[in-house]
Amino acid sequence: MPSSRRVTLKEVARQAGVSYQTVSKLLNGQVRLLPETEARIREAVDRLGYRPLYPARSLRSRTSRTLGYSWTPATPDSPNQILDLLLQSMLSAAEASDYHLLCFAHHFDVRRELETYLTLYETRRVDGFILSSVEYDDPRILFLLEQEIPFVAFGRSNPELQFPCIDVDGCEGLRRVVNHLLESGHRRIAVLAWPETSRVGNNRLEGYLQAMHSAGLEPDPLWIQRGEGQVAFGEEATRRLLNLPPERRPTAIAALNDLMAFGALRAAQQSGLYVGSDIAIAGFDDTPAARYVHPPLTSVRQPIWQIGQQLIAMLLEVLNHAHTSPPECVLLAPELIVRASTSPEASE
Amino acid sequence: MPSSRRVTLKEVARQAGVSYQTVSKLLNGQVRLLPETEARIREAVDRLGYRPLYPARSLRSRTSRTLGYSWTPATPDSPNQILDLLLQSMLSAAEASDYHLLCFAHHFDVRRELETYLTLYETRRVDGFILSSVEYDDPRILFLLEQEIPFVAFGRSNPELQFPCIDVDGCEGLRRVVNHLLESGHRRIAVLAWPETSRVGNNRLEGYLQAMHSAGLEPDPLWIQRGEGQVAFGEEATRRLLNLPPERRPTAIAALNDLMAFGALRAAQQSGLYVGSDIAIAGFDDTPAARYVHPPLTSVRQPIWQIGQQLIAMLLEVLNHAHTSPPECVLLAPELIVRASTSPEASE
Repeated sequence: MPSSRRVTLKEVARQAGVSYQTVSKLLNGQVRLLPETEARIREAVDRLGYRPLYPARSLRSRTSRTLGYSWTPATPDSPNQILDLLLQSMLSAAEASDYHLLCFAHHFDVRRELETYLTLYETRRVDGFILSSVEYDDPRILFLLEQEIPFVAFGRSNPELQFPCIDVDGCEGLRRVVNHLLESGHRRIAVLAWPETSRVGNNRLEGYLQAMHSAGLEPDPLWIQRGEGQVAFGEEATRRLLNLPPERRPTAIAALNDLMAFGALRAAQQSGLYVGSDIAIAGFDDTPAARYVHPPLTSVRQPIWQIGQQLIAMLLEVLNHAHTSPPECVLLAPELIVRASTSPEASE
Repeated sequence: MPSSRRVTLKEVARQAGVSYQTVSKLLNGQVRLLPETEARIREAVDRLGYRPLYPARSLRSRTSRTLGYSWTPATPDSPNQILDLLLQSMLSAAEASDYHLLCFAHHFDVRRELETYLTLYETRRVDGFILSSVEYDDPRILFLLEQEIPFVAFGRSNPELQFPCIDVDGCEGLRRVVNHLLESGHRRIAVLAWPETSRVGNNRLEGYLQAMHSAGLEPDPLWIQRGEGQVAFGEEATRRLLNLPPERRPTAIAALNDLMAFGALRAAQQSGLYVGSDIAIAGFDDTPAARYVHPPLTSVRQPIWQIGQQLIAMLLEVLNHAHTSPPECVLLAPELIVRASTSPEASE
């Protein structure tokens, strides 16, 4: 069991046989001592288990060793399936460098949101921020760049805005899905996509188009169904696809997220089709539910642990001014997880 | 847009026409001034948007206005489905009282885990903790009680340990499930339960037994299947139940969590049964996947938003010594969500 009483600077000084100012100055890097003296003090610090008070240290060093993170709340219709893994990854990376994560509430009111970021930074509660769910013209990004507040982002924004970020190569993810469907013999492959305003959606859709074109296939315009990325839309769009005349009716559907794929599963099953053999359906995100639906859903898994670790490493580089080259966006390739919804013989 | 430059105490003092020591003392509650003077200073603070530096304020007040929270990382087999809602609820409650949440990494090594709690508290990074996934003889609880470190818990531990906690009445949850199955005409109702060492499991199981006994039914011992709360166990136990002779074969299965219920769905469907009409299956936790499986799963929803809000309120009461009576455990009733897996005509 760790010991209970807090050790004071005075006790360290007494143990080391020096004044308490000497200990304080040494620990704050304000003085150089004889090697023997320094060794004696450091040994007393270790033996007694002295830990400097955090607010005092923070006030001196002008850094809080704390990173701020806030995220958009999920809804029952769009649960945040990666939150736990992303947080755990960031927490472990931060701790390894003696940093902590301050989590704070999201505000849908933009002014209040930006004020929260500014206040946390200005009052020295945090040294910088991690952003996620980044959009085009994201007001947080424009504001933090303008204020020169350090941050890194999970996700890309406007190409002309320069900031360190990590993103998953959604285009590559969809290429992998479509190539897998092509290899399974499908030619009429439809896609359940997001509205045209969605950056993430357009990036994933591009992978579908690239893979189809590489195979010499021109998708029927009706095969590209756009809507809100929900179960209900997936169901409704799939019903429309299944009502096409046989020669235009798709034999495979790639959804840009798992929720739309769940809706597609339901619509196909309600039409009496066996998913996996009569029709192939794939999702994206590899949500926990993908393994529990029947049949289990082929999906694309984002390397979330790696993303969390890299986000923290990048932010610490920014804070330590170790970043010499201009900030860049790192793209990570996702992994295709094949299950029975596209491949009846899959083991999972 | 909030303004960018940090306002200093000196500027407030100049604006209000007083010395900077006067402003500082007023804001730290160390002096009483003439009402006009105080009003003039407060107006200058508001107009200029002065915000005291957090570490300085923290050092003076000896509180960090920060609460610590750490949780056990989920695995693909047991995702943490309530994390987002619980965190969002706690973050919003904390913010409303000008507190923040410091999240920190979980350590499976108990000694390291306890040292983390102690260090965060002793270095004044946090004022107290919120615990979740509480167990019998939970080492964190024993340690925090011994060290007199403030905390509240989501979940109960040994009855003889007194600390403020909130828990969901799992017994009541299972009573509601079983009563719903009884009202639908079922009499042979099986339960997929956890090992006998599980406090949460025994509490939920008690609700099953109470409801069966209240209906004058004595469960066949084979109807109580115990195992690890995973999909694979639910599938395997359900196959065993379906292989019982017709007069002992259950017509309904209540699982103590959704994962086992997903396994039960799969086993029933593989036996050619229509879930909802041929057999009723219910889960517990109302995970997001419960709505996406086919048929959608009847489940029990924990009032997570309410729990998060109350955890923070209780911890702030403890910190403000507003707690006059001995700490108590608040039990909240969960809600039964009826879907097609037990009630084919259910709308969801």
